[in-house]
Amino acid sequence: MTAERNVKWGIMGPGGISGTFASDLIFAGGAEIVAVAGRSKEKAEAFASKHGIPRFYGSCEELANDPEAEIVYVGTLHTIHKENVMTLLRGGKSVLCEKPFTINAAEAKEIVEYAKERGLFVMEAMWTRYLPPIRQVREWLKSGIIGEVKLVKAEFGFDAGWNPEGRLLNKEMGGGTLLDAGIYPVSFASMVFGAQPARIMSTVHIGETGVDERFSLLFEYESGAAASLHGSVQLEMSNEAWIYGTKGKIHVPQFLFARKATLYVNGEEPVTVEDDRTFTGHSYQAVEAMACLREGRTESAAMPLDETLRIMETLDSIRAQWGLKYAGE
Amino acid sequence: MTAERNVKWGIMGPGGISGTFASDLIFAGGAEIVAVAGRSKEKAEAFASKHGIPRFYGSCEELANDPEAEIVYVGTLHTIHKENVMTLLRGGKSVLCEKPFTINAAEAKEIVEYAKERGLFVMEAMWTRYLPPIRQVREWLKSGIIGEVKLVKAEFGFDAGWNPEGRLLNKEMGGGTLLDAGIYPVSFASMVFGAQPARIMSTVHIGETGVDERFSLLFEYESGAAASLHGSVQLEMSNEAWIYGTKGKIHVPQFLFARKATLYVNGEEPVTVEDDRTFTGHSYQAVEAMACLREGRTESAAMPLDETLRIMETLDSIRAQWGLKYAGE
Repeated sequence: MTAERNVKWGIMGPGGISGTFASDLIFAGGAEIVAVAGRSKEKAEAFASKHGIPRFYGSCEELANDPEAEIVYVGTLHTIHKENVMTLLRGGKSVLCEKPFTINAAEAKEIVEYAKERGLFVMEAMWTRYLPPIRQVREWLKSGIIGEVKLVKAEFGFDAGWNPEGRLLNKEMGGGTLLDAGIYPVSFASMVFGAQPARIMSTVHIGETGVDERFSLLFEYESGAAASLHGSVQLEMSNEAWIYGTKGKIHVPQFLFARKATLYVNGEEPVTVEDDRTFTGHSYQAVEAMACLREGRTESAAMPLDETLRIMETLDSIRAQWGLKYAGE
Repeated sequence: MTAERNVKWGIMGPGGISGTFASDLIFAGGAEIVAVAGRSKEKAEAFASKHGIPRFYGSCEELANDPEAEIVYVGTLHTIHKENVMTLLRGGKSVLCEKPFTINAAEAKEIVEYAKERGLFVMEAMWTRYLPPIRQVREWLKSGIIGEVKLVKAEFGFDAGWNPEGRLLNKEMGGGTLLDAGIYPVSFASMVFGAQPARIMSTVHIGETGVDERFSLLFEYESGAAASLHGSVQLEMSNEAWIYGTKGKIHVPQFLFARKATLYVNGEEPVTVEDDRTFTGHSYQAVEAMACLREGRTESAAMPLDETLRIMETLDSIRAQWGLKYAGE
């Protein structure tokens, strides 16, 4: 499939999302997982066995010192992303870190500055951006075919049930909607406008465990355009995205798992692109990360570190409106 | 079709919306149009000839004195609704008045108080509420099948082109998005929650003719629920409505012309109701108005006058945020 050198991956955090990543990685081509680590060596071992990975470790430090791994996918709780990423960077590893990149902008800044200092590749694993239908959406936007974009709508809501001990509702574990689910619509709006909002309006429901169980956001941009975003770990939503421009609109059903996108130019027949992949789609971001490594780039043009930082600042501003703080803030 | 007495209708304003109403009225059964009036007697005559109406007049006063008409449908510009409705009520006619009922709450209050004093039937022609799929949506909501409703989304946007002389962009003619198109999503949210928002957040684009060409609203209710509403006379939107509850959700494509609605109860197969009517659907509200007249009711339970008034107050509050005033305000 590729004549390029294989990229050797490590995986930090042997949980669910890392499992999806590892299973998808085979579809990237030119990738090889050489080690996995977790705070529990037993879980790392089970993960290694399941995915045919040669080495497993009981700590991030050991993975940071693995002789072969060139880049590490970090799929741990977001409360420990910063600690993990810094450890890995200190060990000279490149990093693909799950969203949310960190808990807040200050943590993200620390990572970005250190990675730049070391000249190491780092990227937020906003995998949605690399899905073929979303790449097509970006092409349509760039071409100006729907005119000036005036309104973006996006949302991600699901019913996680009532499990106050689980990660999603647990404040100590960085739970709540915004960082987990809400980052998708917020990042989508950032991608479309290439800007952060000048004014943020919001409603939120903080539940009894102290985290945001659902929210609605209305962003107003310097340009006068707007974004309307919703998220919840309590309500099942349509999870679609719409982009309205002066000459047409774009629809992405289940936008964060995008398998298709439809372009409606006013007065013309709609055009739909479909991606009939048989896997979840986490491999596309890995393809991008590996292309960057092979070409010596330290960040991805589709998800630049400066944008990751600015999105974290927007999330900080939203949480400030809600009075929502995490441990250590 | 009906053994009940025929209700004799007058029509005030021989324009486009009245034409749709007159064409649809035949599907109501038990209705007869006996007279039409307009500021231009010629237009009234042409309308009468087209729709087979026996009498036509060049003024609202003459229609108010028509010996047969029992109820008048008012389809004039909303800037003259109040004047027309008051003239008709003084003549002892019942009234079905197009939306927006009036320009502001003060005008609506004047009508409602006078109609009550005279014991005459008056109803805002929010025809959407009487469409069978919307009636079904209300039944689903009443049954509690989707649990507690936490978020309502609705919008109405179309591209009317750039015609600054036309009614939609003309401030003197009460133009702009909110009163014309925006009232649909605002009224829909009011219908679902049976309440007006405790907090209103908004973005708006006031164009060069001084009217609101597009807007986004985020409503927060006393209960903590929210509504996210959009409107535009410049942007084509999906025009769908979604209602998200704790146990499921409801989708109404093209909600203000609702021909179908789908109920999604979490974990169950979706259920869709469809209305395969061959006409626009303005007759359903006429059926309701006639039932009220035959039963001696002075208002419709599905669109009570108090709610019409409270919706006008919400629209007033929104316009106050925007600094948007109409002539005489």
